[in-house]
Amino acid sequence: MFFEGSEKKAEILVNASKISLIDDIADDFWTNLVQCCNAQILSSIRNDDCKAFLLSESSLFVWHDRLLILTCGNTRLVHSVEFFIQQIGMDKIQQVIYQRKNEYFAHAQPSSFGDDIKLLGQYVQGKAYRFGELDSHHNYIFHQDNSFQADSLDKTYEFLAYQISQQASEKLTTVGLKAEEIRQFLQLDKLIGDFMLDDFVFDPFGYSVNAIKGKDYLTIHVTPQANSSYVSIESNINLTELTADFLTILAPKSFDLLSFNDFDFVNLTDEFIPKDYVSKSRVSERLSNNYLVCFANYILPQQGFSEAKAFDIAGENHAL
Amino acid sequence: MFFEGSEKKAEILVNASKISLIDDIADDFWTNLVQCCNAQILSSIRNDDCKAFLLSESSLFVWHDRLLILTCGNTRLVHSVEFFIQQIGMDKIQQVIYQRKNEYFAHAQPSSFGDDIKLLGQYVQGKAYRFGELDSHHNYIFHQDNSFQADSLDKTYEFLAYQISQQASEKLTTVGLKAEEIRQFLQLDKLIGDFMLDDFVFDPFGYSVNAIKGKDYLTIHVTPQANSSYVSIESNINLTELTADFLTILAPKSFDLLSFNDFDFVNLTDEFIPKDYVSKSRVSERLSNNYLVCFANYILPQQGFSEAKAFDIAGENHAL
Repeated sequence: MFFEGSEKKAEILVNASKISLIDDIADDFWTNLVQCCNAQILSSIRNDDCKAFLLSESSLFVWHDRLLILTCGNTRLVHSVEFFIQQIGMDKIQQVIYQRKNEYFAHAQPSSFGDDIKLLGQYVQGKAYRFGELDSHHNYIFHQDNSFQADSLDKTYEFLAYQISQQASEKLTTVGLKAEEIRQFLQLDKLIGDFMLDDFVFDPFGYSVNAIKGKDYLTIHVTPQANSSYVSIESNINLTELTADFLTILAPKSFDLLSFNDFDFVNLTDEFIPKDYVSKSRVSERLSNNYLVCFANYILPQQGFSEAKAFDIAGENHAL
Repeated sequence: MFFEGSEKKAEILVNASKISLIDDIADDFWTNLVQCCNAQILSSIRNDDCKAFLLSESSLFVWHDRLLILTCGNTRLVHSVEFFIQQIGMDKIQQVIYQRKNEYFAHAQPSSFGDDIKLLGQYVQGKAYRFGELDSHHNYIFHQDNSFQADSLDKTYEFLAYQISQQASEKLTTVGLKAEEIRQFLQLDKLIGDFMLDDFVFDPFGYSVNAIKGKDYLTIHVTPQANSSYVSIESNINLTELTADFLTILAPKSFDLLSFNDFDFVNLTDEFIPKDYVSKSRVSERLSNNYLVCFANYILPQQGFSEAKAFDIAGENHAL
């Protein structure tokens, strides 16, 4: 059974003097927004600074001055971005950023990144880049090219783990596994013990958690099935320093680190990435919106030989 | 400008007591066969044992008892296989093997491997495997599952280079470059000096060469453009021992080695692969048709940071 865990991601910053996305927008709006990409809201938590919606495909976070939405599977997130632009108006929007990670099953997606930004281009003048090699892990990032300049303290981190260990995959695909057991397995108490949590265990497996504390957020999405396993962790707290913990828990064959505005990325990765992982690709670019984006892909060298994976000829997933 | 260099490949072995593909089949047949996947024959060479056709998308080799066809781009090779089966009949066919390498632009392909073998399954009962990880380089191999047992001396080697050096890419995309200059660059005199050659320089760039000597063959296909550069070398002579030469010439960021029936693959790779390349994935499987298939993917670890690649928003290749 395959599921495309890799997310599309959009971040939209608004002019806080013209609109507050928390005070001025009712929850119905967000229900409609996520429906535009065929996702549904499962539950939500909130504090004075942030609303966090857990979605059938990943997460939506809303602050007074911005929103962040991540959707996986075969959702076409760009339609939700289009809805937001049409409903709110570009005059209240300061910056649109749209990102797509490489997919396991690119040919099964309803659109390519190029298709998506062609649609965005009807509303937003922007630039786009690819971080990472085409034949390996990579991220496409489109951003509005206007006078907006990001605050240097506005930081984001992404940790993306591929091909987690057989042990982790088996644990996370255990029938009847409870949210509390997954929280323990991921050591959330240790990592974000003082955050408010909202999580969901999917049937037959898969796990999502949103965590917030003031303006801080952290979200984890787990696609645990062998062969296409994927775990994404995104936060505005520094994940680089926590990477060794994640690697101990998940032991992926490969992982990516991505940061916005971590100016110490080189030193931090040198300090915190275990030496048994090898850097395959490292890319850095300062965007015209003043975000410094750094991307690094690491792999675990293989010594022995493994068996080939049998392909299910009679299976239903021929498109995959 | 993007081009999908990664090939689909089919090998079909016939019962030599019932038919000779050289003596009993006219060239018109091969013209029709390659047209089934939207390729054309550009030129050909032959000796008593082998006919080699250079195609608009890669190559076709025909021996008395077998054919080998490789096609790249957006060809749907499985339609040529279907044509062969329908015209020749399964009663004269001993073994069908169908292979697909991971593509740079999987979402731009007219079909997936699963689609292809679903079609093949109408004619051939078989098994299929994936060699390599889904999120990295991998090869899918389908083979007929019958009483056929491959000769242990029937060996094949594939060397697949991705992201060749900027220097090699620039040289091979030089306007007006002549076949003789590419032969020199690839050191064909040194590698296969006593083979009969047939080569073609594509416009604006790209290069294919077929080489034969008795039953031996070697074919090289070069997609030189930066970002999606790809060079494939396939032969029944031992490429593992030549890998260091290829790596010196092409300096790819990543490459794959694949062998059929090289029982010394482990030792040969340990001996001949330069130590600056790191093994990312190693897979070995003996198929029920008695081919031992070994696959290894190597990468060149990156120390420094590179710039992100600008994405051509206004470009025509949005599907890519």
